[in-house]
Amino acid sequence: MELDTDKEIIAKIKQNAERLVKDIEATIDPSITLPLRSFSNVHFDSKLGYLFLGDKRTSRNFLNIAHTRKFMQSMMIAEKCKELLEMGKSASIRELYYELKHTIPGTKENTFEGQTESDPLIEDLETMLDSLREHLHLKADSKGNLFGEIVIKDMGDLIDCSKLGKSGLSIPSIVDDYEFVSCNAKYILVVETKAMVDRLVEEKFHIKNHAILIGLGGQAARGARRLIHIMHERLKLPVYTYTDGDPWGYYIHSVVKTGSVNLAYESRRLATPSAKFIGMTMADIETYGLQKVTEKLKDVDKTRAKQLLKYEWFKTKEWTKEITTMIEKGVRIEQQALASKSLDFVANEYLPKKIAAQDFIE
Amino acid sequence: MELDTDKEIIAKIKQNAERLVKDIEATIDPSITLPLRSFSNVHFDSKLGYLFLGDKRTSRNFLNIAHTRKFMQSMMIAEKCKELLEMGKSASIRELYYELKHTIPGTKENTFEGQTESDPLIEDLETMLDSLREHLHLKADSKGNLFGEIVIKDMGDLIDCSKLGKSGLSIPSIVDDYEFVSCNAKYILVVETKAMVDRLVEEKFHIKNHAILIGLGGQAARGARRLIHIMHERLKLPVYTYTDGDPWGYYIHSVVKTGSVNLAYESRRLATPSAKFIGMTMADIETYGLQKVTEKLKDVDKTRAKQLLKYEWFKTKEWTKEITTMIEKGVRIEQQALASKSLDFVANEYLPKKIAAQDFIE
Repeated sequence: MELDTDKEIIAKIKQNAERLVKDIEATIDPSITLPLRSFSNVHFDSKLGYLFLGDKRTSRNFLNIAHTRKFMQSMMIAEKCKELLEMGKSASIRELYYELKHTIPGTKENTFEGQTESDPLIEDLETMLDSLREHLHLKADSKGNLFGEIVIKDMGDLIDCSKLGKSGLSIPSIVDDYEFVSCNAKYILVVETKAMVDRLVEEKFHIKNHAILIGLGGQAARGARRLIHIMHERLKLPVYTYTDGDPWGYYIHSVVKTGSVNLAYESRRLATPSAKFIGMTMADIETYGLQKVTEKLKDVDKTRAKQLLKYEWFKTKEWTKEITTMIEKGVRIEQQALASKSLDFVANEYLPKKIAAQDFIE
Repeated sequence: MELDTDKEIIAKIKQNAERLVKDIEATIDPSITLPLRSFSNVHFDSKLGYLFLGDKRTSRNFLNIAHTRKFMQSMMIAEKCKELLEMGKSASIRELYYELKHTIPGTKENTFEGQTESDPLIEDLETMLDSLREHLHLKADSKGNLFGEIVIKDMGDLIDCSKLGKSGLSIPSIVDDYEFVSCNAKYILVVETKAMVDRLVEEKFHIKNHAILIGLGGQAARGARRLIHIMHERLKLPVYTYTDGDPWGYYIHSVVKTGSVNLAYESRRLATPSAKFIGMTMADIETYGLQKVTEKLKDVDKTRAKQLLKYEWFKTKEWTKEITTMIEKGVRIEQQALASKSLDFVANEYLPKKIAAQDFIE
């Protein structure tokens, strides 16, 4: 789904501010009402296929002394975002904190004592305005890279992502303004580790298979999630995720597919519900004779695996079987374990065969 | 300094192997001799300006039962690297581990039990052959991005790094084969955080100032360090580092400039001794009125600062003063704290003025 324009967001901020001014003029205690963002209010919509926030709401009143500081801080953040939007600039959430931090004149009170005070209020503002922080012109940390037969227009530059050698495009935090000028790819392959993307690039997998490769470098950053979402939506390309066969890898898949618990309110703009999981799977261990290159599950892995079983969106027959098998076997299997067959096995056998046979976990 | 060619490395590996075979045929206990890589053997060459390993050596004998396993493993790694070089392929150090891991026929013994066994032996091989792992066709994790007026030829692709929008080039692990086709930049600015690079790119700093921007994303990865080294060497560009004003930032500078303790044996190929430190400095706090946006030093910061004071390469007048002042003030100052002045302050005031005045710590 597309975002509001800058003008629309500015209008929303003004609207909210004017409502508060009216309340003050009418000597009514000004207040903000927000969706509750705790786990108890996170739900999974099995039809739409992503996480969302339920109906529980919380309010913040200026005249409630426990809320007053946060109320002031929220106003400051909203004002600064409006300024950024008007100037056509963007700021990192750390810069925003430093921009707003000062001592209130005539007092010894600082507006903010740490970024831990401003970060949650940014999330408040996102839910209040029903907008992504990226569209409030705030940047999260960027991570990940991209290769493939797609030409992207970014800040006026035409970038042919099939002509970036083994280096690839660094995925920024804000990708909404990317224009996809042309695309010759057939699907998007999202890969957990950058080292595996290096392998696939060295084997020219992306060229031979007309694939767009996205390397996450671990858990998916917001920029990468949003990019996968808009590429899928605008280019109508299927999305396959390829991670390690362990609870952490499975959760990375689920974050790309259904959204994360922490950012449940943004799933519909960050998640790609049709994403399919390629591997590594427990069945791969038998199929490809990888018994000697598994790793033992640590306690922390087992605990995490048991948590996954409790999440609504993992309660399908296939995922329950997959995770239960993992716990029973007591092992995990990494992407790079396929190197025990041969370096090019993943590129020339494993992935092409799985994709041709559509052998996925949904 | 340039590296040996693939052929030369292959010849070195063969030479070593043939020597061992001769020893065996002559019923001499085959052995390998290596420079000792512990801190006690790490020295700073103040003339050359980088770290190096001293004369202490250690040897590994096949018939010493405590060495036998490692001896076998070293041979396996050398053999695999030779194979990679001959095939013109490269592998991540994790792939190498998986490629070599198997059960020795007729026994229950595995060749390797974990990557912790193979990684140090790769370092052994590097020192033994006096070669970078990248030139043994082994890849470390990649990190960092690049922007600027330089055209790089990589795997046959011509990449104009001034035409990559706000995305930038993702810096790979192996950069030795980069060809610098043309360059209009006047210096290389190495920046600790990616968010600060985003800021500078948004302000078009790299275009206005003809700068190559390198974002490290924290501690400098080997690929980024090698890239800075070869760009400096081949393009004769000055290198300026810009980090947070804290012991971690100062150490990042010193790793770029003089090398790291862990990889002391590779400093001459990874370090850039002429690199100059721009900031953040303790003096900046007064000069720019940043007292309200400093952060208190934690115990772990203080401990690290005191460690730095003991390192030979920090024992200059300027660095001693800088670090001592930090400990006395008990504060650190981040790059992004300059946002408290205004978002574009760093790009339009702070950096250009410091560079024009050559106001650096060496």
